Amino acid sequence: MKANPLQYADFGKGKTAVLLFFNPSLRTRLSTEKAAYNLGMSVMTMNAAQGWKLEFEDNVVMKSDKAEHIREAAQVISQYADVIGIRTFPSLTDRAKDYEDAILYKLIKYATVPVVSLESAIRHPLQSLTDALTISEHQPRYRPKVVLTWAPHPRNLPQAVANSFAEWMLAWDAVDLTITHPKGYELYKGFTAGASITHDQKAAFEGADFIYAKNWSSYHDYGKNPKQDLDWMITGDKMALTNAGKFIHCLPVRRNVVVADEVLNSAASLAIEQANNRTYAAQAVLYELLHSK
Amino acid sequence: MKANPLQYADFGKGKTAVLLFFNPSLRTRLSTEKAAYNLGMSVMTMNAAQGWKLEFEDNVVMKSDKAEHIREAAQVISQYADVIGIRTFPSLTDRAKDYEDAILYKLIKYATVPVVSLESAIRHPLQSLTDALTISEHQPRYRPKVVLTWAPHPRNLPQAVANSFAEWMLAWDAVDLTITHPKGYELYKGFTAGASITHDQKAAFEGADFIYAKNWSSYHDYGKNPKQDLDWMITGDKMALTNAGKFIHCLPVRRNVVVADEVLNSAASLAIEQANNRTYAAQAVLYELLHSK
Amino acid sequence: MKANPLQYADFGKGKTAVLLFFNPSLRTRLSTEKAAYNLGMSVMTMNAAQGWKLEFEDNVVMKSDKAEHIREAAQVISQYADVIGIRTFPSLTDRAKDYEDAILYKLIKYATVPVVSLESAIRHPLQSLTDALTISEHQPRYRPKVVLTWAPHPRNLPQAVANSFAEWMLAWDAVDLTITHPKGYELYKGFTAGASITHDQKAAFEGADFIYAKNWSSYHDYGKNPKQDLDWMITGDKMALTNAGKFIHCLPVRRNVVVADEVLNSAASLAIEQANNRTYAAQAVLYELLHSK
Repeated sequence: MKANPLQYADFGKGKTAVLLFFNPSLRTRLSTEKAAYNLGMSVMTMNAAQGWKLEFEDNVVMKSDKAEHIREAAQVISQYADVIGIRTFPSLTDRAKDYEDAILYKLIKYATVPVVSLESAIRHPLQSLTDALTISEHQPRYRPKVVLTWAPHPRNLPQAVANSFAEWMLAWDAVDLTITHPKGYELYKGFTAGASITHDQKAAFEGADFIYAKNWSSYHDYGKNPKQDLDWMITGDKMALTNAGKFIHCLPVRRNVVVADEVLNSAASLAIEQANNRTYAAQAVLYELLHSK
Repeated sequence: MKANPLQYADFGKGKTAVLLFFNPSLRTRLSTEKAAYNLGMSVMTMNAAQGWKLEFEDNVVMKSDKAEHIREAAQVISQYADVIGIRTFPSLTDRAKDYEDAILYKLIKYATVPVVSLESAIRHPLQSLTDALTISEHQPRYRPKVVLTWAPHPRNLPQAVANSFAEWMLAWDAVDLTITHPKGYELYKGFTAGASITHDQKAAFEGADFIYAKNWSSYHDYGKNPKQDLDWMITGDKMALTNAGKFIHCLPVRRNVVVADEVLNSAASLAIEQANNRTYAAQAVLYELLHSK
Repeated sequence: MKANPLQYADFGKGKTAVLLFFNPSLRTRLSTEKAAYNLGMSVMTMNAAQGWKLEFEDNVVMKSDKAEHIREAAQVISQYADVIGIRTFPSLTDRAKDYEDAILYKLIKYATVPVVSLESAIRHPLQSLTDALTISEHQPRYRPKVVLTWAPHPRNLPQAVANSFAEWMLAWDAVDLTITHPKGYELYKGFTAGASITHDQKAAFEGADFIYAKNWSSYHDYGKNPKQDLDWMITGDKMALTNAGKFIHCLPVRRNVVVADEVLNSAASLAIEQANNRTYAAQAVLYELLHSK
């Protein structure tokens, strides 16, 4: 897909992707639309902000402000689409509910066409596929050392990117994964079991081939993000501890909070190239889903 | 169009539909866009929520918040479009004005390309064409008994769907139409003259082949919707009175308010299939309008 | 492009325009999208209102509500686009900053594909190209007299359209340009040097072949628009002073504030035809930028 993005430009003729954004998006929206266009598909994008609210609970008397049930919406949209993409967001207040990923799974349950997660409450698989592609393109050696490091951020963010990154790297089993974060930011063990985990960021960076930086809010003190100092920011000094390591971030990134300018502006940063890979990851997934249909 | 949606996939090449939504839409937007794509057209969709306000009054000194007159907007958009679709909404406070359907007719007056109503203040013709298609596909006998029944809803809704349904069924003259609703919910006689009208919902359901359920607010106590109890909800018991009748609703539908889960989830419900027909109805209209141009 | 809009309908196959609107738009959005479609391109349009805020300052600790730096956004979007269009808007409070046109130039600096201004803080070049096209189509004689006249408006508007019109007419050097406005509404001399400038609107209109009307707020008492009476409105009496002059406005226009109905509805008005030319101006620019790439 990356070597020749338009090789399947006629493949998707007459096929339509419907993309549903319950949360705004720049990269995911543009790269997924671009992927669909590269495959010759049509795209219809809905932003929930444009005024529709769905009911996700069953057996409910629908007298609230929610005009439609996911059951109808999923079946109806399926008839206009060959594939549905959906972005949802966690509450960050009700962990049990967020970790059920109910909106995504209800859509999958009722849809009659394939559904692609464009980031759900707890996972971001298209990002992780992109991460694996980027790492495989740049790996300097067999089983490179990959470090997922927590970094500061002024807002309370989901754990989705970190969860999926850990899950995919471990399942891929082509890298050695170390996760480092301050105490209190432990991720759900269901995603991280098998990784080396340490609270010592500098020790983690030693000999690393890839530094994957991301903020996430606490899983245990759910949704909270108490650590607001910048001790864990990724700096040039810390990068100097690595094995000429590459810096990766899924973007958007807060400069001089998550990462210092000196790192993001350096040749070691793969952040921009990584964003480009989003298109090809999405394109591969759309092709695979529609090819096998 | 339904048997082979892509048979005219080259017909609309180089042609553009501009869709103007003064009110949000899921089904109408997606099905009309899909119809245009099936015909090979381009689509440009504008949501009024994105920040433009039009002046519809003539001879006015435009010092309000309305930046543009419909007269210019209609002529300008016509130059970018081969067909214009527009969704408007009634005030539900000024009946005389709503029933003039001024926004739609001013657009038609000044536009220089065909205009398609995507639901206006008082009519929803693309929905009615879909209704006729669905009924014709499922009719068990010559001149089936079709019942348009009022159903409860927590909000104050337009009469548009009910008005158009009555108007089209009577003009089509291929079914026997009965309309049933509580006292005070009489529709405008200009749309219903010729139908059997009763306040006895159960009597209406007896022997019915199709139950078409829809809430509408009062035409006489204009825009009000006082009846908030659920006596008129469509239930399995009521459906049992019919001639193995099919249930139709234009969606979105409030579960367990308009209709009980047991009906909507049953094999008797055509609501999902009906929504699919929206695409082909829109496709037929777009083709016809552009073919004859 | 105008004689045969679809002559390059295969030129843009597989190419994508990304359009970024930091301010809402009707004409510019639709005409630019239409231009791209006429060239066979795909279009992805982002409205800032959909929820993304960019940081434009360098060396900043990004702890505000701005989630992404223009530096990343520009580079990332460039990877999804063959050309980027951007609409920005002035603050109308900080003249020095507005006249740096920082957002546009930062995008140009960091983007790796061509950037087209869809109106910036201080210029609207696609409008001016359209203006030149419209004037050249209708000019009754060699070096026609073109009058740019200020007109009243209830809001405080940018100087962008007037600035660019003056700049382009003077650089084109195919017309004689007169600018007329009330005292206090002098434009930045960097754009107007070489034009005849007068505070006597009627004198300016005498013998004019084209009247180009536009409100702008004050450059000197920056962003203010104190003159709210309608003395400067374009009326039939004033048009009678011209050499059977044509009336042009870029739209949207406030009827009976900027211009009287009698003028806008007359055969002398080129406002609608002018809006049509927006498509071909955009198409020519997109073709030129992508052709030479």
